[in-house]
Amino acid sequence: MAEQDDHPAPEVERDEDHQPLNRQLISRIMYALETGDREMLWAEMEPLHAADIADLLEQSNAYDRRRLIALYGQEFDGDILSELDESIREEVIGLLTPEVLAEAVRDLDSDDVVDLVEDLEDQQQEAILSALEDSDRTLVQQSLTYPEYSAGRLMQREVVMAPEHWTVGDAIDFMRNAEELPEQFYHIVLVDPRLHPVGNVTLGRIMASRREVALKDIVEETFHTIPVTRYEGDVAYMFNQYHLISAPVVDEEGRLVGVITIDDAMAVLDEEHEEDIMRLAGVGEGGLNDSVIETSKQRVPWLAVNLGTAILASAVIALFEAQIAQLVALAVLMPIVASMGGNAGTQSLTVAVRALATKDLTGSNVWRVLMRETTVGLINGLIFALVMGVVGMLWFGGPELGYVIAAAMVINLVVAGLAGAAIPVIMDRMGIDPALGSGTFVTTVTDVVGFFAFLGLATVFLL
Amino acid sequence: MAEQDDHPAPEVERDEDHQPLNRQLISRIMYALETGDREMLWAEMEPLHAADIADLLEQSNAYDRRRLIALYGQEFDGDILSELDESIREEVIGLLTPEVLAEAVRDLDSDDVVDLVEDLEDQQQEAILSALEDSDRTLVQQSLTYPEYSAGRLMQREVVMAPEHWTVGDAIDFMRNAEELPEQFYHIVLVDPRLHPVGNVTLGRIMASRREVALKDIVEETFHTIPVTRYEGDVAYMFNQYHLISAPVVDEEGRLVGVITIDDAMAVLDEEHEEDIMRLAGVGEGGLNDSVIETSKQRVPWLAVNLGTAILASAVIALFEAQIAQLVALAVLMPIVASMGGNAGTQSLTVAVRALATKDLTGSNVWRVLMRETTVGLINGLIFALVMGVVGMLWFGGPELGYVIAAAMVINLVVAGLAGAAIPVIMDRMGIDPALGSGTFVTTVTDVVGFFAFLGLATVFLL
Repeated sequence: MAEQDDHPAPEVERDEDHQPLNRQLISRIMYALETGDREMLWAEMEPLHAADIADLLEQSNAYDRRRLIALYGQEFDGDILSELDESIREEVIGLLTPEVLAEAVRDLDSDDVVDLVEDLEDQQQEAILSALEDSDRTLVQQSLTYPEYSAGRLMQREVVMAPEHWTVGDAIDFMRNAEELPEQFYHIVLVDPRLHPVGNVTLGRIMASRREVALKDIVEETFHTIPVTRYEGDVAYMFNQYHLISAPVVDEEGRLVGVITIDDAMAVLDEEHEEDIMRLAGVGEGGLNDSVIETSKQRVPWLAVNLGTAILASAVIALFEAQIAQLVALAVLMPIVASMGGNAGTQSLTVAVRALATKDLTGSNVWRVLMRETTVGLINGLIFALVMGVVGMLWFGGPELGYVIAAAMVINLVVAGLAGAAIPVIMDRMGIDPALGSGTFVTTVTDVVGFFAFLGLATVFLL
Repeated sequence: MAEQDDHPAPEVERDEDHQPLNRQLISRIMYALETGDREMLWAEMEPLHAADIADLLEQSNAYDRRRLIALYGQEFDGDILSELDESIREEVIGLLTPEVLAEAVRDLDSDDVVDLVEDLEDQQQEAILSALEDSDRTLVQQSLTYPEYSAGRLMQREVVMAPEHWTVGDAIDFMRNAEELPEQFYHIVLVDPRLHPVGNVTLGRIMASRREVALKDIVEETFHTIPVTRYEGDVAYMFNQYHLISAPVVDEEGRLVGVITIDDAMAVLDEEHEEDIMRLAGVGEGGLNDSVIETSKQRVPWLAVNLGTAILASAVIALFEAQIAQLVALAVLMPIVASMGGNAGTQSLTVAVRALATKDLTGSNVWRVLMRETTVGLINGLIFALVMGVVGMLWFGGPELGYVIAAAMVINLVVAGLAGAAIPVIMDRMGIDPALGSGTFVTTVTDVVGFFAFLGLATVFLL
């Protein structure tokens, strides 16, 4: 049960030194770059996966990136573009010669091309689309008609399907004779005559069965189809919840239009997480590769909101100026109550935001969760009231200040628990992402309540 | 480029109402429970996936959970236990009759049994192990000898392998005649005579090839083996980075001992996210199903750390008691500087923690990132210095207070950017999870610097 505390166990091995993109390799690559030694560069980069080359480009500064791409030349592969962070994709595409770019995109699957072009400016988009073969271009353009962040943008159009009456032997013969099969596929989708998917057969089951077995007798137990307009985050959730490997995508009439595989769903899950964690911290998109100006722009809005709420909290303090002038110890102690409330509120908030994201917090348990967070706030409030009461007493040499800070602590931690859990739930019900700015709202509540409770109680009982 | 801002696009469909576990179903299930109607309960729960039943149990309170399990009886499936959150797994296992438990675990794959028993107390662990067949029990006990959170715990022992000299026809005949194949598999692992994996062949390539083709001629280009002691988080990263579907696991001698599939890697990625986000907020394990006392215990440690740092910040304020008594406006304005610093620091911190987790922040770009965060701090500091300077001036009717708060703002936001990025990097170098408590350290720095800069400058220039 104490799993995560002692994590990772000491015997477990971390792979810091086994990274393909390690310091030694990077310095050899930089050496090749400095000396303009193209052969050496190619040799050093040969064993790297496209994802590692993309990381290398991301971690380089703009100057090295330009030199690297120029020297690497025609070896530049389309997969590198797919793996690149969006923040520098446009820059890198702009650095490629038209020939290299055309060559690079031609081998990509349709879903990767869609992912590549959807955020590009018109001119670059056109350059890539015109490099494709006609049939591929049509597929990509069709996918682009689906809404952003939908299953339609995520799916690949290359599907292996079979009529529902086929046998294992039919399927094997079909695949042996197929001119082109998708690079990765794990299921054959069974369809009825109107192209509605009726089941999934794993390749493993096909291989393990005799040729005369009917495909519909070996379909998988769990079968889900995905509407083409479904939000990609829900698709990722579904894959994770039901351990899907691939799932067919259907249009409004229920006809098979594509297939989504788990590796794409995993990438979406990772992006969703990035978004949650960044939004909770009030950081817009926040890539490491954005420019200083870009980054500053992304962060200013939430800092501005925070300034507004901080001024609000100050206004509360201003109500008690006369009391503070009378007893300066109040000014010394008041940030403690606010800080503890902010911390406790953030704890409740994070648990609630995460539970909403994983659909563990629903209509059926929301009251129990609110109740629980409030009760935890009460218990922790009492614990720290005791501690802080004693500290206040010792520090300022009298029991009264201790009583007041203890009472304010209890009030603020109860409010923190309630607000921390309730604010994300309310935002979610209103259709707003609960990760977005709820931290600021919760700390506003705990600042205002903290200062008001402490200074107010002090005014009543001390002065 | 502005992707995440307008996300999700309005046309994209959310699946709130398509959840299998919706309110209507839950109320029918509760009705069956109230009336003790076992047939109805079975009928209503029949279409639910084990993961949904686990969610239902998690969202119920302890009383309903007990009744539900009693009425559901022998229908209880082993997969439900695998899907259950660890926080209530022990409780649920304790509610099952020995017969139901034995029946439930017997169908699970070895990796699922390992995941199930590794955190149980000895008595429950024994009950489950003794329900297994001898050969399965041996596999599970072997896996349990690998360290926690290692690839060895994650892998399944059931592997489909083939000698490297086999042809497609050999492989197909072997699979057709195999008595038992794993429920899910996507590759055949080619091994040399010493059982060292030498390549992966996807089932799709096998199906698409003629019987006489040699397996080693159709191996996948990307091939990674995973040491059995490798940390599971690194395994998940590897799957996501290289779009792996399954990968062989090898022991110290390089011999094949198991295989990890992407669905397990995806679950680990999700757990790692949970851990990151919870640790950043100072919430221990923090499940929704932990008791109030359990939850309070998890949160008290970080609240205690926060209290310590808040007292430290108060001690800084105490240094300036005389000045505050002279000019109470200082007490009113001082939380603003601290709050802005805390917010800006959290922004830098979150970007750094996330970049470390995704291995985007490495030795090769750390100086550039520190420089960037500090510069962003400077720019945002200047922006809000201007705003707050004007506010301070208008609010308190004189320019001097405005200058002081503006200068303190610049200082604190620069420090926030630097500390926010540097603290996680330093923790990471020291081998400590950078998500763990770095938030508290950063806000300690910004509180202390914020109060000291503002009150110190005020002392020098105003009084």
